[in-house]
Amino acid sequence: MSFNTFGKIFRFTTWGESHGPAIGCVIDGCPPNIPISESDIQKDMNRRRPGQSKFTTQRKESDKAIILSGVFEGKTTGTPISIMIHNEDKKSRDYESIKNKFRPGHADYTYFKKYGIRDFRGGGRQSARETACRVAAGSVAKMILKKILGVKFNVIGAVTQLGLMSCNKDNWKDSEIRKNPFFCPDKKSVKLWEKYLLAVRKAGSSCGAVIELRASGIPVGLGAPIYSKLDTDIAAALMSINAVKGVNIGSGMNAAFLSGEENSDEIRKNSGKINFKTNHAGGILGGISSGQDIVASFAVKPTSSILTSRETINKKGKNTKISVKGRHDPCVGIRAVPIGEAMISCVILDHLLMHRAQCG
Amino acid sequence: MSFNTFGKIFRFTTWGESHGPAIGCVIDGCPPNIPISESDIQKDMNRRRPGQSKFTTQRKESDKAIILSGVFEGKTTGTPISIMIHNEDKKSRDYESIKNKFRPGHADYTYFKKYGIRDFRGGGRQSARETACRVAAGSVAKMILKKILGVKFNVIGAVTQLGLMSCNKDNWKDSEIRKNPFFCPDKKSVKLWEKYLLAVRKAGSSCGAVIELRASGIPVGLGAPIYSKLDTDIAAALMSINAVKGVNIGSGMNAAFLSGEENSDEIRKNSGKINFKTNHAGGILGGISSGQDIVASFAVKPTSSILTSRETINKKGKNTKISVKGRHDPCVGIRAVPIGEAMISCVILDHLLMHRAQCG
Amino acid sequence: MSFNTFGKIFRFTTWGESHGPAIGCVIDGCPPNIPISESDIQKDMNRRRPGQSKFTTQRKESDKAIILSGVFEGKTTGTPISIMIHNEDKKSRDYESIKNKFRPGHADYTYFKKYGIRDFRGGGRQSARETACRVAAGSVAKMILKKILGVKFNVIGAVTQLGLMSCNKDNWKDSEIRKNPFFCPDKKSVKLWEKYLLAVRKAGSSCGAVIELRASGIPVGLGAPIYSKLDTDIAAALMSINAVKGVNIGSGMNAAFLSGEENSDEIRKNSGKINFKTNHAGGILGGISSGQDIVASFAVKPTSSILTSRETINKKGKNTKISVKGRHDPCVGIRAVPIGEAMISCVILDHLLMHRAQCG
Amino acid sequence: MSFNTFGKIFRFTTWGESHGPAIGCVIDGCPPNIPISESDIQKDMNRRRPGQSKFTTQRKESDKAIILSGVFEGKTTGTPISIMIHNEDKKSRDYESIKNKFRPGHADYTYFKKYGIRDFRGGGRQSARETACRVAAGSVAKMILKKILGVKFNVIGAVTQLGLMSCNKDNWKDSEIRKNPFFCPDKKSVKLWEKYLLAVRKAGSSCGAVIELRASGIPVGLGAPIYSKLDTDIAAALMSINAVKGVNIGSGMNAAFLSGEENSDEIRKNSGKINFKTNHAGGILGGISSGQDIVASFAVKPTSSILTSRETINKKGKNTKISVKGRHDPCVGIRAVPIGEAMISCVILDHLLMHRAQCG
Repeated sequence: MSFNTFGKIFRFTTWGESHGPAIGCVIDGCPPNIPISESDIQKDMNRRRPGQSKFTTQRKESDKAIILSGVFEGKTTGTPISIMIHNEDKKSRDYESIKNKFRPGHADYTYFKKYGIRDFRGGGRQSARETACRVAAGSVAKMILKKILGVKFNVIGAVTQLGLMSCNKDNWKDSEIRKNPFFCPDKKSVKLWEKYLLAVRKAGSSCGAVIELRASGIPVGLGAPIYSKLDTDIAAALMSINAVKGVNIGSGMNAAFLSGEENSDEIRKNSGKINFKTNHAGGILGGISSGQDIVASFAVKPTSSILTSRETINKKGKNTKISVKGRHDPCVGIRAVPIGEAMISCVILDHLLMHRAQCG
Repeated sequence: MSFNTFGKIFRFTTWGESHGPAIGCVIDGCPPNIPISESDIQKDMNRRRPGQSKFTTQRKESDKAIILSGVFEGKTTGTPISIMIHNEDKKSRDYESIKNKFRPGHADYTYFKKYGIRDFRGGGRQSARETACRVAAGSVAKMILKKILGVKFNVIGAVTQLGLMSCNKDNWKDSEIRKNPFFCPDKKSVKLWEKYLLAVRKAGSSCGAVIELRASGIPVGLGAPIYSKLDTDIAAALMSINAVKGVNIGSGMNAAFLSGEENSDEIRKNSGKINFKTNHAGGILGGISSGQDIVASFAVKPTSSILTSRETINKKGKNTKISVKGRHDPCVGIRAVPIGEAMISCVILDHLLMHRAQCG
Repeated sequence: MSFNTFGKIFRFTTWGESHGPAIGCVIDGCPPNIPISESDIQKDMNRRRPGQSKFTTQRKESDKAIILSGVFEGKTTGTPISIMIHNEDKKSRDYESIKNKFRPGHADYTYFKKYGIRDFRGGGRQSARETACRVAAGSVAKMILKKILGVKFNVIGAVTQLGLMSCNKDNWKDSEIRKNPFFCPDKKSVKLWEKYLLAVRKAGSSCGAVIELRASGIPVGLGAPIYSKLDTDIAAALMSINAVKGVNIGSGMNAAFLSGEENSDEIRKNSGKINFKTNHAGGILGGISSGQDIVASFAVKPTSSILTSRETINKKGKNTKISVKGRHDPCVGIRAVPIGEAMISCVILDHLLMHRAQCG
Repeated sequence: MSFNTFGKIFRFTTWGESHGPAIGCVIDGCPPNIPISESDIQKDMNRRRPGQSKFTTQRKESDKAIILSGVFEGKTTGTPISIMIHNEDKKSRDYESIKNKFRPGHADYTYFKKYGIRDFRGGGRQSARETACRVAAGSVAKMILKKILGVKFNVIGAVTQLGLMSCNKDNWKDSEIRKNPFFCPDKKSVKLWEKYLLAVRKAGSSCGAVIELRASGIPVGLGAPIYSKLDTDIAAALMSINAVKGVNIGSGMNAAFLSGEENSDEIRKNSGKINFKTNHAGGILGGISSGQDIVASFAVKPTSSILTSRETINKKGKNTKISVKGRHDPCVGIRAVPIGEAMISCVILDHLLMHRAQCG
């Protein structure tokens, strides 16, 4: 049992609230002697960091990840790595006017009913600010995976659907993703998406997104029956991200529409290498990696904090209305890309360690 | 860590292979003094049991669940409940011809690569036969939930998409679901589905399905941040079922298409009761139940064992072809309905116990 | 969390009551491809089995361990091994006369107060009969350890104190232990112990015991800071055995009497091998194995079921007296030897797998 | 699995090294709405803090516990409480001369062999400095227990054996314990112990200790079969403390010397209250609390860092000698008193929450 801990052998525990002094994570189960540096982690942190384009919240956070333990002379020691990130741009005042109202779509109501207490400042623990810690943990996981699996290992995510706007996945280019503020993999969609999102923001509204993750260089054999399947843990990892409502592995929900012939990926051995002719399975069969790319996607609901007035109740149970000003992302899904990459990296590493445990 | 165990406080461990002498589960963490009987469990077992219509595999199993421990004079004692189900209709011969080939879409290849050993008889541990144990555990969970939450608690599942055939969810009737062999909630769709599935079977093919689960009578406050969210655990529970490739909570993947106004369910207090005007959230906000119905759905891929010849390799890595005869469901998704109900019941009970632990 | 499960990666879950139809365990996390047979397990079962000498309870149980899953063609498959042991010689009648009284020294009172229900037949789940499952799990653990560590691995236990009778540990001979009904390692003590225990039994009384365990061939490096120390888990493993009240690692409680010079085992390198001059640490430093023999001991309290009349209360809270007839060991500590061996073997294997996970 | 986490529902994870920037812990599973303050925690921290008398190390640490999360407006919110303690008086130079030698009795050798890396500064993670985090977590646990169980709940520890010097436990006075630098409960022993320990220190040697813990006001029913017994978890909790080699519950190792009549505590109902005539069980029967005081004791080995020259090897495997100067406690057992109190408090709270989960 572990309310705020993720993972089985490679485990991280996160702590902190949106408007407290700091947030952080403790990463346990790291193999020793892996080179880790704050500057490497920072690169990943910066990709999730708010305030980097006009399409994300204007909260200013340097999101500097400070390593407090577990690294000695630049290398992991095998003991817990504690990482702390100070909260800098806290404007609790923004929340004074809504401190007694429950924002629809947020967890204000459910937290209050569960715990009988409410940290109204930016949502407290329910804030997506917590995800900064996941990115730090995922960064450590990626460095370990790179060390163990070599350069062939890679994880990349992209936004493939922005609200009502889709993109052409056939045009997917990894190099394109980091060139635009939407993590869009299809160069041709960028301009349209920009117009669309500006319109959404101008209307005081928000939109959802679909993010697709691709992990390559994964050896066959990771994952384990029955309740530690690789896809089970990926589903949990992605569904645990704020505002995520759906998770697909490979063909995902669309698998329902396929015939048995279409769906079951045929296997061929060509010039000494085993290949699958298709990848509807998303690289996972029976919960175990097949050596193909692992492909997963997830849907993020539209930002619940919008300017439009909405009906709700207050702490006393009285009907009222609410309109959320503050600083908010018109599409929180965009910043979910590095978070998704982080989570899937942690799951893959965890399963790699589990596999070493059981199968040597 | 727990390869074959599910849950945190209410936990069950399953064991057994498709063609071994028996399968079973050990259920731990049951509250004491709850009336439990084999006959009640059997009712749920029978709904998953194969061979009940021409639309499921013809394997004949009575699937009789025998309680070996944990129940004394008809009541739970608080100690582990061990349930065993004998395997009766084992035809290992069916698998002789394919024992050295990897069936595409199945986990033959990945199990063999992971463990270096292959139990070819019906897929061994990868067989969906394991899900009988989940139904037994879920049955116990439901009895406990009924005792604690009262008659208002209910969980029901239905097939809402059968391959390419959808149904009209506005016509959903709980009472209809158990009247047809498809667990279809819309009376009007049954005839069409019947024709469709017969055609699929005749073609030696198979199809997928979408199952929707609805749980009502759930109190507000179940679930916990950040990595024990209720939806996180539901996603894991459903994705762990054989052949599942996608999981939705509430609007699920479609949340990406909604605007902020559409998606955030407004809250009203009417005649002393708190109500949400819509339920896009599927009854879960910030990982915590809101008191609305919990709604989740999942996609099951088409049965991988089909008559059509498919390309594959054998254990020696040589290219070959395969056509799977044996006894198989044209749509395994149908029998996933009671399994999905069982899994979501286990998750809800687990979170109810966790909530009692932390919040009294 | 896991009420009835032991271990982290190599995990076993036990189930069953003293007078139910059967007891059993499910062993998860086994490495694949390890030869396992029922007959090998049976050898260990027989050492714990009751009714083998006049110094143990006369309950007749063949304690036949039946493997139901996880082994295919004589080898582990990496999936859960389910083992069942039927209860044969159940005399529930023996307990009729005391079904409403709480036996002092037993858990009758605490179980009843905790669960509000009482399985009076032989103590139900509190019975030491559960330990048969541990021996089965430990037997599997030992076979895996032998396969991985080679013939140099060995675990042996002995009774070094029988009630008021001690033995001379300088005379410890492994070969002697299995030759007498007391698992006494010192041939010279056997005759005296026999006289002593006959006198105890004749008086309708009982006595305690100290058991010492020695594990050799353990590589340096098993165990992990801070809450997965090897000695932490050994202490938990041994204290979880019925009637155990104290656990020592190396010098144990006597470490308090040593000086810093005496206690800290000096290290020497002689002819290419690292040796410690003494082993007060019991082979564990900072929670990690040092390569020396692991030495642990534990005290078992005297059997609580005695003929002598004792004061107690009944279920209604009324004062009364009790005298326990039935079939009981005059010293339950004797049969704790194979149980202790089993538990320490499970802990060592678990840590070996954990070490492989983290350190490759 | 959790290398650096302790507990099941109430869980804490500790991080940090002796000579890093800080150490800390993250406490998860706290019930909400419990008043917690830094100043209350500090009182417990100060009792463990070094440099308070001439009988402990002269390292100067203010050991100020800073709460970074999980407390809002003075009360727990139910989310993780992160506590950080800065390391102030770090003298890494002290360790330069021994950085390539393995200190006998310490974990230098085993850590190096396990991880292939060595943080020589004060022992890094193996340092007893980590125990400051346990005291912080234990302090939080005690406040929660006080709130739930009321004023009748109390935990107190004392040194009952200081090296070769025992005390008269019949003279135990709680009030006396905090009045002397040894946590000695028997006023009459203090003068003698002072002389004895000065002599030990003067000789450049060290001594061990036995600490006894007594918890009162514990309800009947905490603990659970079979592998979550209350005594199992207490044994693990205490054995996980640095330098502990033995753990007793109630009569402990001495239970081996008792007869069945002596050992089994008789039960009486007097004026409406259930009482046990003795407490050899230490308040635990079958792993479940009986309502009596919980009594546990543990032995701490003598400080391994002594002035006396000792034989050892260096990192290159060459024979050498070592004499440890630095700042060290002549008896680390003394400062183990507040640590033991903290650990047993955490276990009791954890089991109280587990009991609420299962039994309502």
